[in-house]
Amino acid sequence: MVDIAERVYNHNWKIDPIVRSLIDTDFYKLLMCQSVFRNRPDTRVTFSLINRSTDIRLAELIDEGELREQLDHIRSLSLSRGESTWLRGNMFYGKRQMFRSDFMEWFEGMRLPPYTLTKRDGQYELTFEGQWHEVMLWEIPALAILMELRSRAVLRDMGKFELQVLYARAMTRLWEKVERLRDIPDLRLADFGTRRRHSFMWQDRCVQAMIEGLAQKFVGTSNCLIAMRREVEAIGTNAHELPMVYSALADSDAELRKAPYQVLADWHEEHEGNLRIILPDTYGTEGFLAEAPDWLTGWTGIRIDSGDPATGAERAIAWWRSRGEDPREKLIIFSDGLDVDKIAELQVQFSGRVRVSFGWGTLLTNDFRGLVEGDGLAPFSLVCKAVSANGRPTVKLSDNPNKAMGPADEVARYKRVFGLGAQVPQEVIV
Amino acid sequence: MVDIAERVYNHNWKIDPIVRSLIDTDFYKLLMCQSVFRNRPDTRVTFSLINRSTDIRLAELIDEGELREQLDHIRSLSLSRGESTWLRGNMFYGKRQMFRSDFMEWFEGMRLPPYTLTKRDGQYELTFEGQWHEVMLWEIPALAILMELRSRAVLRDMGKFELQVLYARAMTRLWEKVERLRDIPDLRLADFGTRRRHSFMWQDRCVQAMIEGLAQKFVGTSNCLIAMRREVEAIGTNAHELPMVYSALADSDAELRKAPYQVLADWHEEHEGNLRIILPDTYGTEGFLAEAPDWLTGWTGIRIDSGDPATGAERAIAWWRSRGEDPREKLIIFSDGLDVDKIAELQVQFSGRVRVSFGWGTLLTNDFRGLVEGDGLAPFSLVCKAVSANGRPTVKLSDNPNKAMGPADEVARYKRVFGLGAQVPQEVIV
Repeated sequence: MVDIAERVYNHNWKIDPIVRSLIDTDFYKLLMCQSVFRNRPDTRVTFSLINRSTDIRLAELIDEGELREQLDHIRSLSLSRGESTWLRGNMFYGKRQMFRSDFMEWFEGMRLPPYTLTKRDGQYELTFEGQWHEVMLWEIPALAILMELRSRAVLRDMGKFELQVLYARAMTRLWEKVERLRDIPDLRLADFGTRRRHSFMWQDRCVQAMIEGLAQKFVGTSNCLIAMRREVEAIGTNAHELPMVYSALADSDAELRKAPYQVLADWHEEHEGNLRIILPDTYGTEGFLAEAPDWLTGWTGIRIDSGDPATGAERAIAWWRSRGEDPREKLIIFSDGLDVDKIAELQVQFSGRVRVSFGWGTLLTNDFRGLVEGDGLAPFSLVCKAVSANGRPTVKLSDNPNKAMGPADEVARYKRVFGLGAQVPQEVIV
Repeated sequence: MVDIAERVYNHNWKIDPIVRSLIDTDFYKLLMCQSVFRNRPDTRVTFSLINRSTDIRLAELIDEGELREQLDHIRSLSLSRGESTWLRGNMFYGKRQMFRSDFMEWFEGMRLPPYTLTKRDGQYELTFEGQWHEVMLWEIPALAILMELRSRAVLRDMGKFELQVLYARAMTRLWEKVERLRDIPDLRLADFGTRRRHSFMWQDRCVQAMIEGLAQKFVGTSNCLIAMRREVEAIGTNAHELPMVYSALADSDAELRKAPYQVLADWHEEHEGNLRIILPDTYGTEGFLAEAPDWLTGWTGIRIDSGDPATGAERAIAWWRSRGEDPREKLIIFSDGLDVDKIAELQVQFSGRVRVSFGWGTLLTNDFRGLVEGDGLAPFSLVCKAVSANGRPTVKLSDNPNKAMGPADEVARYKRVFGLGAQVPQEVIV
C-alpha cells in the first residue's frame, strides 16, 4: 500500500497525472460506447461540464495550467496491451468476449478528441465535441480530474502530518462504515464512486477496504482499472446519456415518445441477464413504466437513480406485479444519494420482497465532510453531460426536479410528451 | 514515510529486527555509561526484567524462539561509523565532545554481553550479568524488544485493513494530543518513550508528529537514533540505577546514607548546566532534599519521577526557597505518568513559578488503549533494573510504594537509614 498522505504531499512538487489509463473509467461507459459504436456511429454530440454547486468556484480554486496539463495528459493515453488483453479475455457478468473484436480494434487506436476550455463567472466551461462514441469517453476522466484537482487545491498548504491525520480520520470513518455494513444480512454492494472520488488512490483504498471488510457482500467496482488490478468484478450497465441522445435525435413527438424504449431495444439485442437493467427515470419513472412494452417486463431489474428511493422501489414492485411478474425474482439497484443509514434502511425495507443491490458512489469514495477547516473537501455536485446531439439540445427530467436539465422550451415539450406531473424535489449532494 | 500498517502486516512473513542500532537507546544511558566507565569500571551487576503487570503473561504471548532471535540480533550489533561520528561530533546540551575519546574507543568495540532466558509462571525471566557499563546497555533494547514483540503478537491475526485502521485511529489520537498541546503557552516537552514504545516505527512517527505540530515546544527525544535521523536534540540526564548501584556497594549504613549524593558528586565533576538535574526520589525525596549538601542547591533542576507530581514540585520549590535560591531560575522536569490533561494542568499550576519541562513517555509512544478487542495493546508496566551489584541486592523505595523494589529486609534497612515515613501509593500504569 502506498502511503496516501505522502503522495498527496508530493503533489506539491512533482507532476502527478490523475488519470493514467483509459480504463480508469466506469465499466458501463465501455458497454455504452460499444453500443453507440454499433448502433449510432455517426452521431455527433457535445458534452459539457456542469457544476451544480455554484458556490464552489472551481476556476478560482484550480489553476488553469494544471487543469490543461491533466487534460492533455489523458489525450496522450492509449489502451495498453495488458488493458486490452483484460477487456478481451476477462469474463464480465459471466460472459467472455463481452467486447467484440471490431470494437476492441477501434478502441486500441482511439485517442480522446480535443476539448475547449474557458473561464466564466469563477467556473470552468469545459466542452467536448465530436463523434458520440469518442466524446462520451471524456465524461468520467474529466470529472475525476476536476474532483482531484479540487482536492489537491484544498490540501496544498497542509503539513505532512496534518495530511497523515486527515487520511487517518477518513480511513477510520470508512472502516466504521464497512463495519456497520458487514452486519447487514444479505447485503450486496458495489463501488460506483469513480466520478466523484476524492482521488484515484483513495477510491482504490476504498475498494480494498471493502474487499477485506465485506468479503462476499462486496460485489465489485464500476472502475475497470481497479477491477482489473484488484481482481474483482467490473460492475455497471447503462446510463441516462443513451435515452437523452436518442431522444434529441427524434424527429417528432411520436418518435420522442418511443426513443427511451428504442435504447433498451438496442440493448436487449446485445445483452442478457444482469445486464438487462432498466433505468426508467430520465423522463419520469411513472410514465415510463406505464407505457413500457411487454418485453421490458422480462428484464432482470430496475436501477433507481433519482427521487425518493423507497417510493421508486415500491413503484417498480407494483409495476412488476401488475404485469404478472414475481418481484422476488427481480433486482432493484439503488444508486442515488446513498450512505450507510440509507443502505441499511432500504435493505431492511426491501429484502425478501425483491432482490436488492446497491451502487454506492460519492459518500463511499469522497466522504471527507468536516475533515478540514471550512469543510473545503465536502463533496459537491459536478456532472458532465451530453448537452446536444446532431445540433439539437438534450433534455433530462429525472424523478427529482433538481436534477433536470435542458432549455426551458424543450423541457416543457418533454414534460408534455412524457406526461410528467408534479414532482417532489430532493436535495442533490452528490 | 513508511506505511506502518503494511510493515506490521509483513512481520508475519519475514524476519524483521526490532532494534537495529546500538544507539536506538536513551541518551541518558550513554551519559551514565560513560560515567560508570570512568568512575566505577570494575563493578559487576545483574540486571533483570520485571513485569509489574502480572496479568500480561508474556511467555504465553511471545514465542521464545522469536525473542531469542531478537536478543541475539542485538548482540551482533556494533556501533556504525555514522553513529560513532554523530556521537563524537554532535553538540549535546550546547557542548561538543560530550563523549570522550577513551569512552568512544571502548564503545566502538563493545558488543552486548550474553543473556539468560528462562520461563516461569507464564513470564520470562531474562537476566544480564557482567560489567556494569556493558550490562546497563541492555536495559532499553531489552524492553523495546519485549514491548514490540507483544505488539506483534496481538496484531498477528489482524487483516491488512484492520491494521490500516488501527494505525489510522492511533494517529488520529496522537494528533489530537498534539493539537491540544500546541495551545499550551510556553510548553517545553520531550519524547521519553523509547522503553515503552509500541514499536520503533511508531515512536519515530510520534517524534515526527511533534516536530511538525509543536515546533519549538518540542525540545527533543531521548532516543539517540531518532534524534540523529530527525535532527533534533537528544535529551536526558541520569536515572535511578546510579544511586541504586552506588548504594548497594556501600559498606555501612553511614556510607549508604552518603551514596546518593556521591552519585551526583561524580556527575557534578563531569557535567554542568541543564545536565545537572537532581533525581531525588530513589529513597524518598523529602529526606534526600533535607540532607542534601549545599553544592546541590546550585544545580539547575529536579526531575520528578514518582509520587504526586504537584506535591513533588511544591516540595522542590519550597526546598529551593529554604536554601535561598530563586525557583524561577530553576527547572522542574516532570516525567512520570503523563498524558495531555496532566501536562496541561501542571503547566498552568507551575508556569511562572519555576521553569517547567516534560519528559513524556508511555502515553505518547504507546497509547493504543481501547483500539483492539480485549484491549490487548494497552500499555503495561515492564522494567529492567539492576537487581544486584557485586553480589549485593539493590533497593529502590521511590515516592510511590508501588514502584519500590528489593528484598524485604533490605527495604526495611533502607527505610530506616533514609528516614522514610508513610507514603501515598499511586497507580502505576507505565
